[in-house]
Amino acid sequence: SVTLFGVVDAAYEHVSGSALAGSVNGLVQGANSSSRLGFRGTEDLGGGLNAGFWLEAGLNNDSGSGANTSANNQTSQNSGGGLTFNRRSTVSLAGNFGEIRLGRDYTPSFWNDTIFDPFGTVGVGAATNATIALGGANGIQTTVRSSNSIGYFLPGNLGGFYGQAMYAMGENSSNATAGGFDTSKNGNVMGGRIGYANGPLNVAASYSQTKIAALDNYKKANIGVSYDLGVVALMAQYNQEKLGAPGAFGAEKNTTWLLGLNAPVGPGNIVASYNRAKFDNNAVKADQYALGYVYNLSKRTALYGTYAHVKNNGTSANVTAGALAGNAGASGVIGSSNGFDLGLRHTF
Amino acid sequence: SVTLFGVVDAAYEHVSGSALAGSVNGLVQGANSSSRLGFRGTEDLGGGLNAGFWLEAGLNNDSGSGANTSANNQTSQNSGGGLTFNRRSTVSLAGNFGEIRLGRDYTPSFWNDTIFDPFGTVGVGAATNATIALGGANGIQTTVRSSNSIGYFLPGNLGGFYGQAMYAMGENSSNATAGGFDTSKNGNVMGGRIGYANGPLNVAASYSQTKIAALDNYKKANIGVSYDLGVVALMAQYNQEKLGAPGAFGAEKNTTWLLGLNAPVGPGNIVASYNRAKFDNNAVKADQYALGYVYNLSKRTALYGTYAHVKNNGTSANVTAGALAGNAGASGVIGSSNGFDLGLRHTF
Amino acid sequence: SVTLFGVVDAAYEHVSGSALAGSVNGLVQGANSSSRLGFRGTEDLGGGLNAGFWLEAGLNNDSGSGANTSANNQTSQNSGGGLTFNRRSTVSLAGNFGEIRLGRDYTPSFWNDTIFDPFGTVGVGAATNATIALGGANGIQTTVRSSNSIGYFLPGNLGGFYGQAMYAMGENSSNATAGGFDTSKNGNVMGGRIGYANGPLNVAASYSQTKIAALDNYKKANIGVSYDLGVVALMAQYNQEKLGAPGAFGAEKNTTWLLGLNAPVGPGNIVASYNRAKFDNNAVKADQYALGYVYNLSKRTALYGTYAHVKNNGTSANVTAGALAGNAGASGVIGSSNGFDLGLRHTF
Repeated sequence: SVTLFGVVDAAYEHVSGSALAGSVNGLVQGANSSSRLGFRGTEDLGGGLNAGFWLEAGLNNDSGSGANTSANNQTSQNSGGGLTFNRRSTVSLAGNFGEIRLGRDYTPSFWNDTIFDPFGTVGVGAATNATIALGGANGIQTTVRSSNSIGYFLPGNLGGFYGQAMYAMGENSSNATAGGFDTSKNGNVMGGRIGYANGPLNVAASYSQTKIAALDNYKKANIGVSYDLGVVALMAQYNQEKLGAPGAFGAEKNTTWLLGLNAPVGPGNIVASYNRAKFDNNAVKADQYALGYVYNLSKRTALYGTYAHVKNNGTSANVTAGALAGNAGASGVIGSSNGFDLGLRHTF
Repeated sequence: SVTLFGVVDAAYEHVSGSALAGSVNGLVQGANSSSRLGFRGTEDLGGGLNAGFWLEAGLNNDSGSGANTSANNQTSQNSGGGLTFNRRSTVSLAGNFGEIRLGRDYTPSFWNDTIFDPFGTVGVGAATNATIALGGANGIQTTVRSSNSIGYFLPGNLGGFYGQAMYAMGENSSNATAGGFDTSKNGNVMGGRIGYANGPLNVAASYSQTKIAALDNYKKANIGVSYDLGVVALMAQYNQEKLGAPGAFGAEKNTTWLLGLNAPVGPGNIVASYNRAKFDNNAVKADQYALGYVYNLSKRTALYGTYAHVKNNGTSANVTAGALAGNAGASGVIGSSNGFDLGLRHTF
Repeated sequence: SVTLFGVVDAAYEHVSGSALAGSVNGLVQGANSSSRLGFRGTEDLGGGLNAGFWLEAGLNNDSGSGANTSANNQTSQNSGGGLTFNRRSTVSLAGNFGEIRLGRDYTPSFWNDTIFDPFGTVGVGAATNATIALGGANGIQTTVRSSNSIGYFLPGNLGGFYGQAMYAMGENSSNATAGGFDTSKNGNVMGGRIGYANGPLNVAASYSQTKIAALDNYKKANIGVSYDLGVVALMAQYNQEKLGAPGAFGAEKNTTWLLGLNAPVGPGNIVASYNRAKFDNNAVKADQYALGYVYNLSKRTALYGTYAHVKNNGTSANVTAGALAGNAGASGVIGSSNGFDLGLRHTF
């Protein structure tokens, strides 16, 4: 009754451009689908009830290492590459009422980032190079997932409507303070997402808030829509991240939007997106263009290639293409960066 | 021939009380049964012999992280949350003679702590909040498990008698010294346990010693008994921890005892315990009361709730209820603490 | 379609001798076969093509911890004992053309070290106590495996000829410098291996190079041969490690050779080797003698014992026998060391 599942995806990646100090070549994980190893199972409890668990670990299969998680939604737990079930680690009770899920899980507002991105937020073309830039720049640990969470999911029989809510805890003492701030609620997350999927249409909106006293809290709202015309599926998303106080780059707001498509061509799919991001103080102001082809060798295995170009117009903190861009060094000047992935993805 | 097994148990926990600086809310793992993921298997070698392995990792499923172990029984190996087979990691050869087991395994004297505690040493009601307080306060790494161990277990056909012995090694150089002490034997563990289980009765006694030169060694002895009357199973245990020299709190001895019960009621069980602990110098002097109900949804899945109250009468180093108590801060004053867990446990 | 596999091997080990400050006893992992836990699978893609993945984690089953890997082939990633798939972490595409393999895998030149060593480079008798001494002494991370690698393997139908090539990347920026060196290529690995196996004969040669600017690169070349006479299989290997500049011990070259045998005797095998190593500046100059017996309880399970003696004639940096030798302290004087393992190995 236990299912062992996963993805091992590796790609040769090259990143260059004037926004970088140099260029870099390397092998990266998950440029088409994030590599992972997981264990999950369900138990029928009778009367429409069932229990289930889901343990899913991120995998840096270029080196065999695992990924960090956060115990308190405030700081990263540096595992030095030891395997953790950072992607999802939950126990659930589900029935006609929906599902109650406890543990570490996706923050509701991340789903629109990834579902309405033709690149699924991975590889050089990931929309999240820009859409979680304000959160990332300020060390927010909950842009993608939250630990210590209690989640509720609507049941699946609502005529296409779906939705979820999450409350997650930072687990601080009620009298915690730091730097003159009441930090007792730091790392607490509240969020929800509601959508409608029917035939070719899928549309969803979400909102989440993470308490961080020194930044007067981090808020993220977005909306996404996709429509499948058969010859091509079109998608769009609009995202806003906000802090109540100026963060690391003096910015309080990040606005991003994306237009994308996924078109079946031959034995695979063409995927493309245009993505624009802007901090309210122009520290980040970037356009990203990405184009890829996924050649399916089977339902489980694919070869793929992706090219992305980022054009920065901001004053600093440039957006760059791809996981290896950090290795090549941010130049600190306005400029562009380019990246491509050539990879093999295998799902099991 | 490999079995994948585990427990994913998550609970909402709240801890408060005058012995704490504040209160705290959070999600904790394993408040009914410690969360874990394991792999085990056996091979029939013929002639009554069999070989087996057991790899069992602790799981902080509230954040997806793993747990620390100790390579040398002297210091904790901080894995930063990377998964380790800290719970058990052994290879065995078994036959009519009993079983030889090599690797990391439970220190024999821990078994009475957990088997004769209606709360199984987990959650806010765990007897070990107090029974391994002297060991924990002095950084003893072997109160629960020992690495580098060679274990022997009596065969199962002795008319109800059972027993085991363990020798574990700290792996120091024969000429190791530190702070003027001969530390060559630090981390060496010797221990044994013997018991008798027949019908409603189970009784066992154990003793273990861990060499730590600066503390003139750590010794633990205990005895436990349970008797199942059908409508209720009663249990009791008596524990003593000793150091040869005053430890971190000036104490050399910790005495604890417990009275507990487990009664099937409706589709579940009521569990309750009264637990008293005392350092010889009164630095810890605490009474713990715990009450819980486990509602079985199936043999593998349960909802549960536990409430515990600790009343401290000592001079410092107060005992507190629950895994999150540390987050709420120890007050350093004599006082009480309360905790409750509301959780879901799923076994696979 | 996923196979769970592994080895749990534990041995009591004792190491002593004049080349050590003291002696030491302990429990070690993998003295007959390295302990591991792995997940692998293949998928038939039709037309002779198949895809596969392989995730294999090293296991310190004496304490339950995992092992370190390296993200960039230049520095060790200290996982604090968290599990990593450090042994192998690859995704592959194979067909009539051979196999393309991406991820972390064995450096080609390691294969001759282990295949032509009767002790398979593990336990007190491991030839690699000496054969990768120059690489180890200079912190080379790629003596055994390389991360970020692209490998190619010849197909299996070449009449006994086999071969492989690897290119691995250090993932540095093209303008990276450190200490006056151009370090842009540090951690890049190129290597290949070619061999011929037919009937009783197996012979192979390999070469690999790891770019490390400050040491003017690390190079390793070796050749190994084995011939199975039936009553005994004989083997020999010759290894050379080279740096372009004097390393940590002022040495630029290490030459090692080995003569070994593996003879089926009774229900098991006698294994023996003689191994000689020499740094060009005599900092290491050692002879190692090793003798063991592996008693097979089944195809998967064995009891074993190994004894090794190392005689150092160098000026410093002595070679010592066994994984625990480090715990016993290197004496810094010319001398000998002895070690033995008594263990149980179980494969699943």
